[in-house]
Amino acid sequence: MEEEAHQSPDSLERLVFFSDAVFAIAITLLVLPLADAKLSQANLTRDLLALWPQLLSFGLSFLVVGNYWLAHQRMFRHVVRTDAVLLWLTLVFLLCIAFLPFPTAVLGSHGDSTPGVVLYAAAMSLTGLTSVATWVYASRGRRLVAADVPERMLRHLSLRGLAVPAAFLPSIAVAFVSPPAAWVLWLLAFPLAGAAARWA
Amino acid sequence: MEEEAHQSPDSLERLVFFSDAVFAIAITLLVLPLADAKLSQANLTRDLLALWPQLLSFGLSFLVVGNYWLAHQRMFRHVVRTDAVLLWLTLVFLLCIAFLPFPTAVLGSHGDSTPGVVLYAAAMSLTGLTSVATWVYASRGRRLVAADVPERMLRHLSLRGLAVPAAFLPSIAVAFVSPPAAWVLWLLAFPLAGAAARWA
Amino acid sequence: MEEEAHQSPDSLERLVFFSDAVFAIAITLLVLPLADAKLSQANLTRDLLALWPQLLSFGLSFLVVGNYWLAHQRMFRHVVRTDAVLLWLTLVFLLCIAFLPFPTAVLGSHGDSTPGVVLYAAAMSLTGLTSVATWVYASRGRRLVAADVPERMLRHLSLRGLAVPAAFLPSIAVAFVSPPAAWVLWLLAFPLAGAAARWA
Amino acid sequence: MEEEAHQSPDSLERLVFFSDAVFAIAITLLVLPLADAKLSQANLTRDLLALWPQLLSFGLSFLVVGNYWLAHQRMFRHVVRTDAVLLWLTLVFLLCIAFLPFPTAVLGSHGDSTPGVVLYAAAMSLTGLTSVATWVYASRGRRLVAADVPERMLRHLSLRGLAVPAAFLPSIAVAFVSPPAAWVLWLLAFPLAGAAARWA
Repeated sequence: MEEEAHQSPDSLERLVFFSDAVFAIAITLLVLPLADAKLSQANLTRDLLALWPQLLSFGLSFLVVGNYWLAHQRMFRHVVRTDAVLLWLTLVFLLCIAFLPFPTAVLGSHGDSTPGVVLYAAAMSLTGLTSVATWVYASRGRRLVAADVPERMLRHLSLRGLAVPAAFLPSIAVAFVSPPAAWVLWLLAFPLAGAAARWA
Repeated sequence: MEEEAHQSPDSLERLVFFSDAVFAIAITLLVLPLADAKLSQANLTRDLLALWPQLLSFGLSFLVVGNYWLAHQRMFRHVVRTDAVLLWLTLVFLLCIAFLPFPTAVLGSHGDSTPGVVLYAAAMSLTGLTSVATWVYASRGRRLVAADVPERMLRHLSLRGLAVPAAFLPSIAVAFVSPPAAWVLWLLAFPLAGAAARWA
Repeated sequence: MEEEAHQSPDSLERLVFFSDAVFAIAITLLVLPLADAKLSQANLTRDLLALWPQLLSFGLSFLVVGNYWLAHQRMFRHVVRTDAVLLWLTLVFLLCIAFLPFPTAVLGSHGDSTPGVVLYAAAMSLTGLTSVATWVYASRGRRLVAADVPERMLRHLSLRGLAVPAAFLPSIAVAFVSPPAAWVLWLLAFPLAGAAARWA
Repeated sequence: MEEEAHQSPDSLERLVFFSDAVFAIAITLLVLPLADAKLSQANLTRDLLALWPQLLSFGLSFLVVGNYWLAHQRMFRHVVRTDAVLLWLTLVFLLCIAFLPFPTAVLGSHGDSTPGVVLYAAAMSLTGLTSVATWVYASRGRRLVAADVPERMLRHLSLRGLAVPAAFLPSIAVAFVSPPAAWVLWLLAFPLAGAAARWA
């Protein structure tokens, strides 16, 4: 018994709700490496200041995941139907989101070493690419989106979704030469996403 | 004072919402064994690669739980009423879902040993059977489902819900002979569920 | 500037939603002591079986918290307005709910000792009493409930909410003589709640 | 392609929902330092009583975060539109909320030392100021709020939101002299917020 694409608001509503919940939980779990940090009473100030890499990883991941959430919102605003493929693509995308507390924790402890930086950049890139793949599936030929969305908007959202991977993917290569240089590339993701929002 | 089945949208809405939230939290907590892993700076690449069993457990559990969520969505799309028995059956089903981060963590550390594999397969089977039991209760004699759902669809969803236990239950016996062979059976759950979706 | 009771659906909707989310998170965090358990590869079966007290605490707390969630749903079905007092009473009630993973973890490790059992019974009783206090505030003089709810239903829900504390409060005294006897009393909470549902 | 302010209920609904979810998760994670505490069987009563600073931090943070949630609710009741700036301001505010389990855990272990108290007071103040900044952006010139909200209410909510930072900001200075005196100031936050509610 094949399921066809259907307009049931329940399925779409529950998909959006479930996505928002996974986003909210993953983004809030990012703080756990900080909350679990071992601190000594004698050198508390020093130990707290030594947590700056964990703090930076937390802030960076929060903003990148927040950015992915905003992108998800912009895309799904136009989606009016679900089908089995969209549901599974979204699950794979949410798998990437739920996975991110792991590379974030590794980056917090090993942000100056190549494997920690490569893992983080690869996970972030994959998440972004999965997001764009989901959108391309939903919007190609207006498969699951509203009929009145301008074609230009569909392309705009695809391009805009590629901005973050465009900063994170090359950083994988850079990390083999210099991990801190990869960090600089990541900070470029935000102005890049801003530019993509304006010109795409 | 007995409570009768009632059509209040609030009760059903809150049940669905609460279920989605428990699903979302349980599925996101699956990453914790990875995020809590101890890694050494000196051998970071080796230590990260050594986490592949945890990574595999995370991915497998995420997809199986995601599959249970999709099944829950397909079933509850047809539910129009709640009663006390449905509420408690759903709570027992959610107890199973909330429990899954435990067997997933054990599988990640002990996926090559019989007890770890048996615990995982038993927990996954029980979760699937509880899901089907909830659906059978709700749909038998159209107790709590809409009047216009074809009888064939009700049976279809019961059979489809049995696909995952059909792969996980026999794997309990297999695990006593060979734990890796049980893993192979689990991977069959996905094509089996796909086939059940088409032919049931 | 005093805020008056108002009918804005947003405030009530967000309160119910927020409560459901805190319930769902607290109930799912109950599994963490199990998921974090240290297990040895050599004696995995023995180590897993030795977790039965944690398993029992998880199951008991899940069902008691699930029961509190069902009670919350039954009560708030009749609430049509919020005011500042209801919001704060609900926050204090949710503080109790969010606190429960702590006594549950203690009970899992120390369920055979008086202080572990007393802490658990006291926390569960306090949670139940806070729930009833919130309901009495909302329903007394029909302050915040719908005008057409029978007076008998309002009293029924108050009495029914007292069933769980009625089993947990005396168990505090019992725990000083025999911790296992307190467990027996707790299991009485479920038939007691069932009876309260029928006769109150 | 610039996005204009738009009235799509989806964007605003998802923002409110996402905020509620982050609040609910952050507030429930506050219990983790208690749930993870190491306790000895031999001196369980003593070890449990020794957890009073963690208990106090949990209760204080729960009520302050709960208060921020109520403030968020009061503010967003009047918001009728979103724009890109509001979305990012809210993300930064939620970053502060998701961060709070960290200073709460530090305060629980080091509430009698200056750095622990300064970190907590600074994090709480920053969270409150970010909340007010978000509101000022949304309400200034009625940018994103309903046309019929009295000007007095807009100012009232800004002032009321400043009550918590008004107690936490000076406590940073006080903590350098006496950490316990800072705690006393924090407890003033609640009557202060109450007074702000009445007179502002």
